Amino acid sequence: MLYEKIISAFIESKDMESLKAVLGDAELMEILHAFHDLTPEEQVIVFRLLPKDDALSIFEELDTDEQQNLLRSFTDEKTIEFVNELAPDDRVKLLEEMPAVVAKKLINSLSPEERKVTNVLLGYAPETAGRIMTTEYISLKRDMTVERALEKVRRQAKEKETIYTLYVTDNSKKLEGVLSLKDLLMADGGAKIEAIMTEKAIKASTDTDQEEVARLLQELDLLALPVVDKEDRLVGIVTIDDAVDILEEEVTEDIFDQAGLADITKKETSRSEVLVSGSLWAIWKVRLPFLLITLIAGFLAGMVIEGFEEVLEATAFVAFFIPLIMDMGGNVGTQSSTVFARGVVLGHIQVKHFFKHFFKEIGVGFSIGTLVGIMAGTIAAIWQGLPMLGLAVGLALVVTMTLAALLGFLVPFVLIKFNVDQAAGSAPIITSIKDIAGLLIYFVFVSIFLGNLL
Amino acid sequence: MLYEKIISAFIESKDMESLKAVLGDAELMEILHAFHDLTPEEQVIVFRLLPKDDALSIFEELDTDEQQNLLRSFTDEKTIEFVNELAPDDRVKLLEEMPAVVAKKLINSLSPEERKVTNVLLGYAPETAGRIMTTEYISLKRDMTVERALEKVRRQAKEKETIYTLYVTDNSKKLEGVLSLKDLLMADGGAKIEAIMTEKAIKASTDTDQEEVARLLQELDLLALPVVDKEDRLVGIVTIDDAVDILEEEVTEDIFDQAGLADITKKETSRSEVLVSGSLWAIWKVRLPFLLITLIAGFLAGMVIEGFEEVLEATAFVAFFIPLIMDMGGNVGTQSSTVFARGVVLGHIQVKHFFKHFFKEIGVGFSIGTLVGIMAGTIAAIWQGLPMLGLAVGLALVVTMTLAALLGFLVPFVLIKFNVDQAAGSAPIITSIKDIAGLLIYFVFVSIFLGNLL
Repeated sequence: MLYEKIISAFIESKDMESLKAVLGDAELMEILHAFHDLTPEEQVIVFRLLPKDDALSIFEELDTDEQQNLLRSFTDEKTIEFVNELAPDDRVKLLEEMPAVVAKKLINSLSPEERKVTNVLLGYAPETAGRIMTTEYISLKRDMTVERALEKVRRQAKEKETIYTLYVTDNSKKLEGVLSLKDLLMADGGAKIEAIMTEKAIKASTDTDQEEVARLLQELDLLALPVVDKEDRLVGIVTIDDAVDILEEEVTEDIFDQAGLADITKKETSRSEVLVSGSLWAIWKVRLPFLLITLIAGFLAGMVIEGFEEVLEATAFVAFFIPLIMDMGGNVGTQSSTVFARGVVLGHIQVKHFFKHFFKEIGVGFSIGTLVGIMAGTIAAIWQGLPMLGLAVGLALVVTMTLAALLGFLVPFVLIKFNVDQAAGSAPIITSIKDIAGLLIYFVFVSIFLGNLL
Repeated sequence: MLYEKIISAFIESKDMESLKAVLGDAELMEILHAFHDLTPEEQVIVFRLLPKDDALSIFEELDTDEQQNLLRSFTDEKTIEFVNELAPDDRVKLLEEMPAVVAKKLINSLSPEERKVTNVLLGYAPETAGRIMTTEYISLKRDMTVERALEKVRRQAKEKETIYTLYVTDNSKKLEGVLSLKDLLMADGGAKIEAIMTEKAIKASTDTDQEEVARLLQELDLLALPVVDKEDRLVGIVTIDDAVDILEEEVTEDIFDQAGLADITKKETSRSEVLVSGSLWAIWKVRLPFLLITLIAGFLAGMVIEGFEEVLEATAFVAFFIPLIMDMGGNVGTQSSTVFARGVVLGHIQVKHFFKHFFKEIGVGFSIGTLVGIMAGTIAAIWQGLPMLGLAVGLALVVTMTLAALLGFLVPFVLIKFNVDQAAGSAPIITSIKDIAGLLIYFVFVSIFLGNLL
């Protein structure tokens, strides 16, 4: 990508004509990529030279701080005009990220119609269908002819987010059916809408979780999903482009939870943004909580070893195998909880069939543990010339790895049952239990099999 | 969901009329959910009673083994008819999963036209745009009028996967432009296509990586992306519904790699399917490789401890802090590599600005390490009544945690530079280095500060 260099050069030489020409020739995608690498001042200049539609498209893809920087450069009048033109769902996202005073001022300066839409969206709980839906859809009546419906689509196309899925409502806005523009185009001009619509429309409520909405769109290969209120009235639609972003967001949340990165964000900025660009203090707040839990678990594991201090004093070589016991248990636990979590997300594991999967997983843990136990036990016995030590190491691995597999499935399952977000809690709990239990098991076996050396 | 019970009951009582009525009333989604819970025999019966379109929709959402089971129940003739009607990209997926002999037989029995399409798709490398594209798009000519183009869309709508994005090609099939059905509907009937099309079409090549294609569709909020060959001729399109599935697949691959689950699948079945429903032997092949690497690392860590055997014999309490050193380093390393991996995927970290992020991460590791080191060192000093032990534990944590943060960023970066799939290799490498280095650092500090006790 050379664009950011070319742009910077033209700005430095104040050659706005050439800059405008370059921007006119470039693809939106190239400008967007270059844009991130410009200084805030350069961004403002480039932004002002872009055609309005391109400016809107680029604005919607920027990070929060880049958006705020650009907005600050506008006159009040320009800001109002600009915010008025954003799609309602993008506007809500932007307003949520602004200081409350500024947001309120902006909302009040919107056109009455746009203000109403924005306020409605802001009234729904975060991460629900109500919050992410757009109110820009086309609705038809069941007794319209195909010809009249097509006319309406043509007339309204410009201001609607999608025209490819059309919704049929009655006079009280109750959703009666859905049809695609494809159905409409292929139908006879004189036919009635009710003859070609699908009555059993798949729909979400305003309070449906956004992830569930996104999964529905994905599983059913839909372009848009209608959202209805408690009275079954159509109030908006969620489109596939938003669903893709939501799925990415949800996966990222799970991955961060799993890596012990606490969710302290107030949804203003994503955790990834905080972790990469946040202040040291903000990063600490995300990374420390899980580390402190591990710190406590580490000391508890140390106390287990203390309980066997005399074993250690008599046979220091017993300590050589502490890393092995901890690492092998840890990896099997991580594997098992990942298999469980992804299995549930991808539908390969159904929670109601939990125990079938659970016993299989214990079998897997036991069989792998036995194989690894035999290998490690043999190596340990030869290394230290003590067959009984090999036996202790091997058996400890079998039990610890079976236990870790069991915990990897059981802990997230129990957390789901208690309605705790499963991904957030399982990693620290599994780590703590398997460390403490693993060392306890190992030292008990050592005490049994090497008792004669004490 | 009661559907699977109702279905099972009607099948048992052989009441096919009622079963048919229930299936007719149910939503596709409900049937699909119930379907997974039926026995293979029940699935076959239900499948035969479904209207053909519903059957096709459901078939495309099933797992491989469910698909194979259904196909086996068909007569040869029915199989051929059915496979003929699947969308080309779904058909290719199915054929890849079949035994080669059966696949070949099926391909030869396809209609000449469908056979050609299938063979073309099968010729591209797996995980490229060529392999996932569909050849069912509508192409227009630049000198067509809007009216004639709309007629063509109407005529071809039924057999095309999408009609909402239209492609303009010249006589040698070179891609000249793109337009949306929305543009077409809003334009004047007499206008020429060249007047309303966008010439700068964003496109992929047949050998573009499928993840890149999916990211383009996501970032630009497109419904479809054209795919061209080396001569810039249009050969297919990738639609958004496939992009969503690809993004999910790629994320799953990364998560599995990160959890130490090796990719041994021959793309016949997903890793998650193997791990949940595979044979014990298949599961072993996925889970063992990383465990064996850890086993070796565990023994190497043990050898480090052996190197300080006399320290341990003199001061057994030194072993109490081994779990702490290992766990804290491990967690910081996991956090850092996750921040790096997600940061790159989400665009918050750009690889070309690596060193800026790298030094920030080292700062984060050092500051967190210092905080945790002071806490843990103080506790250790009080617990064992030995200030010098506290100093050794604290300093070891500072160095180990800084090192772990450094490795968490550096290892995946180096693997990217050497073109190794970064997610697959980093976890075992980071774990091994930080364990071995962490224990070495700890024991060196112990030797320095507690030398008088030896």
